[in-house]
Amino acid sequence: MTLPSTRSTAAAFLIATASLGFSATVFAQAGQDARNVEQIADGALQNDRIAWDFVEGITTEVGPRQAGTEAELRGRLWAMDWLRERGFTNVADEPFEMETWVPGDVARARVTAPFAQDLVVLPLGTSAATSESGIEAEVVYFRSVEDLRNAPEGLLDGRIAYISHEMRPSMDGSHYGFAGPARWVGPGIAASKGAVATVIKSVGTDYHRNPHTGGTGWPEGVEPTPAAALSVPDAENLERMFARAEGQPVTMRLELNPRRLGTTTSGNVVGEIVGRNPSLPPVLLACHLDSWWNSPGAFDDGAGCGIAAAAALNVAEAGQPLRTIRILFAGAEEVGLYGSVAYSEAHIDEPIAVALESDFGADRIWRFESNFLEGNRDLHERIARSVARFGVANSAIVATGGADINIARDQQTAIIDLQQDGTRYFDLHHTPDDTLDKIDPAQLRQNVAVWTAVVGILANEPRSIKTGAPVPSVPDTSAR
Amino acid sequence: MTLPSTRSTAAAFLIATASLGFSATVFAQAGQDARNVEQIADGALQNDRIAWDFVEGITTEVGPRQAGTEAELRGRLWAMDWLRERGFTNVADEPFEMETWVPGDVARARVTAPFAQDLVVLPLGTSAATSESGIEAEVVYFRSVEDLRNAPEGLLDGRIAYISHEMRPSMDGSHYGFAGPARWVGPGIAASKGAVATVIKSVGTDYHRNPHTGGTGWPEGVEPTPAAALSVPDAENLERMFARAEGQPVTMRLELNPRRLGTTTSGNVVGEIVGRNPSLPPVLLACHLDSWWNSPGAFDDGAGCGIAAAAALNVAEAGQPLRTIRILFAGAEEVGLYGSVAYSEAHIDEPIAVALESDFGADRIWRFESNFLEGNRDLHERIARSVARFGVANSAIVATGGADINIARDQQTAIIDLQQDGTRYFDLHHTPDDTLDKIDPAQLRQNVAVWTAVVGILANEPRSIKTGAPVPSVPDTSAR
Repeated sequence: MTLPSTRSTAAAFLIATASLGFSATVFAQAGQDARNVEQIADGALQNDRIAWDFVEGITTEVGPRQAGTEAELRGRLWAMDWLRERGFTNVADEPFEMETWVPGDVARARVTAPFAQDLVVLPLGTSAATSESGIEAEVVYFRSVEDLRNAPEGLLDGRIAYISHEMRPSMDGSHYGFAGPARWVGPGIAASKGAVATVIKSVGTDYHRNPHTGGTGWPEGVEPTPAAALSVPDAENLERMFARAEGQPVTMRLELNPRRLGTTTSGNVVGEIVGRNPSLPPVLLACHLDSWWNSPGAFDDGAGCGIAAAAALNVAEAGQPLRTIRILFAGAEEVGLYGSVAYSEAHIDEPIAVALESDFGADRIWRFESNFLEGNRDLHERIARSVARFGVANSAIVATGGADINIARDQQTAIIDLQQDGTRYFDLHHTPDDTLDKIDPAQLRQNVAVWTAVVGILANEPRSIKTGAPVPSVPDTSAR
Repeated sequence: MTLPSTRSTAAAFLIATASLGFSATVFAQAGQDARNVEQIADGALQNDRIAWDFVEGITTEVGPRQAGTEAELRGRLWAMDWLRERGFTNVADEPFEMETWVPGDVARARVTAPFAQDLVVLPLGTSAATSESGIEAEVVYFRSVEDLRNAPEGLLDGRIAYISHEMRPSMDGSHYGFAGPARWVGPGIAASKGAVATVIKSVGTDYHRNPHTGGTGWPEGVEPTPAAALSVPDAENLERMFARAEGQPVTMRLELNPRRLGTTTSGNVVGEIVGRNPSLPPVLLACHLDSWWNSPGAFDDGAGCGIAAAAALNVAEAGQPLRTIRILFAGAEEVGLYGSVAYSEAHIDEPIAVALESDFGADRIWRFESNFLEGNRDLHERIARSVARFGVANSAIVATGGADINIARDQQTAIIDLQQDGTRYFDLHHTPDDTLDKIDPAQLRQNVAVWTAVVGILANEPRSIKTGAPVPSVPDTSAR
């Protein structure tokens, strides 16, 4: 663990040490609960069935649940039933409106010259449709978004851009930031330079013929074009074709029929384990319920919802926690974080104590991060010690939170990141292969154990999570 | 190695020992060639590029090449060009006619109740089409073909049969025989019992959403029905639906539009390294050139053709071999071994000395088998010694040969099996995932090294491969 050596850290450490004596009685009580929770966390490591039941259930009984569609609604109804059956209270669907795009049912790419061969392709979110007979044009090969940015004027006129990258697996998923722009901005840049369509190498690290879809954006004033992802094997095949074509033009026919549905309804599902002191700001546990249309969303993010819910139930099993634990199963994450925005807008005036999200698969948690190491070192260290036995390292990296906890960033409150091993994550992310069988039950249970330990401490912590200060006056939100 | 201890073995051993002195001069010369071939085989282990060039070329420049279609013809033309460029002589396309079925472009399955969800499916070869709007019916779940066989009269009337199995990976692929009947005979049995369609769990060992297609058969007098394979993750999802449906009917809608083209042309590609004594029966090296429509056929069987061709070229590099080496790139293997039958019919009166085939992927060879351990123990042991350095074990198992060397079985001549590690084979077999990236270049080179060593011995062996007897009189086939 690397510790910052600034003056403010030292000051924070003194404050944290001083505060230890002040609330000894409260800590003793919390400590007792924490021990019970610890035993339950240890048991979860061996035996948890709750998270698995959630992710098995939603992937089997609902399956794909794209935001803004009937399938996502079925997912919300299913999840609310599950939460109520498991004992959550205040379970609700908080609807919001969004602009919805659907992929259609035709996605074909065929190299027509110099080597005729079908390639496996899926549209990117917000892709335009081709005409029914498809677009056929010469393909221009860019090894990176950078090369595309530097493309000379006119090169892409009437042509199809192909954008590659060199993504590699990494434990922290950091190559997504490196390779992701091929999808995030590549089609928009190509369209602004006159391309009639864009195909990209899937932003993924696997070698299966299951393209990675995902959202793409269009610059202001640029009309969306057809935009699609080739599976990695197909992209590499296309690249070999360029090498073997020896300068002959490579042409491709692309057929896609996605369409925009206009405004439809999505929603956030919420539920609570009500605490002994409901006037204290709650602990918010988040994940997202929606998936892309092409998979039942096991890793992304059925598992995350299962982990968060299991942790809440495990903490409750140790006795009613001091604070309310609130679950947020966000809607419409994949297509632009609409649920996160809607939740923050709806609840901005209700302070939360701390938020954490699970949305990086189901492999083991290996690192604990908070944004209160300096503000509340005692609590940070307490949490770090409690998860060390599950193989989780402490860290001085400042937690920034998952996509669905905008509210924590908007309220500038405490955030915890329980970093999962993402080595396999981009093998599966946004592909048809994101199915239940990919989840390793033992690693899923480790997630539940770690979350249980962490949430047990947070939900029984009487002081401010962010600062360690004695509990602030609780705003009377009922008066609003 | 297990040795049979029968009298005939002992007798064969004496004959083999006796024959050693007789042909000492010939052996010395062959021994010299064999040393050169051995050096080339050792070099191939480190550096072979020929097999890779073939399989990269055909997967990139041709891609899928289903038997009887225009794509297979392009494959034959491509392969003939490649063989000629590499120095093979007597390169030819030996056409034959066949009944051709094509898969169409619609393959959809959707569970409609009690849990609505699309499943990933591909038709099986010879599947009938559904009506355009599809078939919707209740699904009856059979855990095995055996359970299907035992299904009571009337149970399947108007229903869809779903057939599962428990296939596991194995080095020798032996679970294919165990699980394969789900595909080979399952749909026919279900149709004969009144099922309107059959879906099976893919006969495969992977967990990707790429179904394993393959041929299925129909009993005499039974009209083909729609028949399709779910990917393994989708099949397991369907099985979980049955478990969670708690007795409610599970219904599925299936849409498939395959069709029969009638009689079309396929063909076998042949080529030769002509030996110093062309009147001696040749060594036949086989593979198949066709693939299913859904993959470029890298493992199955582009690699096999690359290995066989590379071995022939490597042996030729050591000097003109005594015997002619003939390459057979068979057509229409996948759809019913038409090429193998046609080749044997066309060439039954031209004796071959020995045949071997590569058609089990591109992973390392681990075991050597022949059908002449008893008939020609000296040669068997010589080959076994020559491949031991590549990690290939000797075996007393009697080789039976690959699918495309019917001629060797029909002529009852010598056969060698160079068994490959098939642990990964049924992850890829007949799926879209059978792409170039699956080939491990190091293991592919080991195949080439082993084949080079073996073919080098065989092509320079003056005695009968099968019996070790002095060379028989060579039939004058030109007089026929």
